[in-house]
Amino acid sequence: MAGCGEDLKLLGMWASPFVVRVQIALRLKGLSYEYMEEDLQNKRELLLRSNPAHGGKVPVLIHNGKPVCESSVILRYIDEAFSGAGPSLLPADDPYGRAVALFWAVFIDDTLLKAPSQALRVATGEEKEEGRKKAAAAMETLEGVLRDSEAKFFSGRDCPGLVDVMLGGLLGSMRASEEMGRLQTFDSTTTPLLAAWAELFCTLDAVAPVMPRVERLVEYAEAMQQPRTAVSRTTS
Amino acid sequence: MAGCGEDLKLLGMWASPFVVRVQIALRLKGLSYEYMEEDLQNKRELLLRSNPAHGGKVPVLIHNGKPVCESSVILRYIDEAFSGAGPSLLPADDPYGRAVALFWAVFIDDTLLKAPSQALRVATGEEKEEGRKKAAAAMETLEGVLRDSEAKFFSGRDCPGLVDVMLGGLLGSMRASEEMGRLQTFDSTTTPLLAAWAELFCTLDAVAPVMPRVERLVEYAEAMQQPRTAVSRTTS
Repeated sequence: MAGCGEDLKLLGMWASPFVVRVQIALRLKGLSYEYMEEDLQNKRELLLRSNPAHGGKVPVLIHNGKPVCESSVILRYIDEAFSGAGPSLLPADDPYGRAVALFWAVFIDDTLLKAPSQALRVATGEEKEEGRKKAAAAMETLEGVLRDSEAKFFSGRDCPGLVDVMLGGLLGSMRASEEMGRLQTFDSTTTPLLAAWAELFCTLDAVAPVMPRVERLVEYAEAMQQPRTAVSRTTS
Repeated sequence: MAGCGEDLKLLGMWASPFVVRVQIALRLKGLSYEYMEEDLQNKRELLLRSNPAHGGKVPVLIHNGKPVCESSVILRYIDEAFSGAGPSLLPADDPYGRAVALFWAVFIDDTLLKAPSQALRVATGEEKEEGRKKAAAAMETLEGVLRDSEAKFFSGRDCPGLVDVMLGGLLGSMRASEEMGRLQTFDSTTTPLLAAWAELFCTLDAVAPVMPRVERLVEYAEAMQQPRTAVSRTTS
């Protein structure tokens, strides 16, 4: 599907930010793939068999029959296995540039990824407040990165790279948390560069069609709250 | 220090499994480096300046004046920036092999990395029991990986690779947790291949001199328990 003799299948679930990241990356690289929506309450045999160590978490990318699991691993795999297709997500001939991008990718997952799930979960007021503060501090840090680079994207180029995809994939979940009054996200007053980045990112052809709608995410999150959200337990 | 015109400094703290991982990787690649022990209660200016986004967490590797932070990022940087030195930590020309290794690296951090810190922290009996069960299940999974590969190391070769370093760097902390009765680690009855792997790994020239002594780790963990362990908050 991806090109001559290449077969790419993505097992996913629409609300998962991890799945959104992989879809954006595949589209940025211009790769064709078959998307298979999973019912996480009733996982298909292919998913269970493809990610047995995690009891069938999504996303799983299956390339010519071979499964790749964990979204951060899948993004790197897409970039390396299809290095000739589309723009590189990581700078190809620059180990230091790659290390810097990977650092920010880890930073985003350590700070902003946890914030919406913390905010949505049953937690004490103090824990929620701590989560909000951490998220706000992380956003200020990322605003500084954009300010220093003077580029439209975290990649430092005119097209998005790994860090853009890592952060961009979270935008739906973060906005849903904001809508539910649980999290303050990219504010045009306090973090104007991030707000402009988010707006630009969401209008990209590779992004717009796969970014989940906020109201649908809110509906899903509310339904999932009793019992505890399934998203955090079943996706990576 | 690493070779002609190369200068490598590692800012670390002896008890941190993340720092141990980086030291093992540098030694496996045969790279010379200057090790600088940090007092985390009184961090030197160089550390704070090198990892400002995390308030000066260790380890930080400084290569010719440029800092690289986050142990998982540092390991990959060492492998890529010094691809000509020593054996590769990740298979160089095999994107799928790299993805498989990175998957297990993430798996280890998601399961076994959290287990000792969970076990050491003030937690309810139920939480501790859950941590122990998860760790035991993860060890059985890793035993299966070694069984399937029929190799001495997770790398599938006669020398260790990234997965070996990721797991091996945790051995000291895991054994300290076991010593304190908080965690059952590699048992020669239930996970004989893992037990043999751990024994072999710890005797390697690249490993033995930098593996922290269990009794010293126990002493440190006990001292750190009031207030809550500093290891988990200050290292990555």
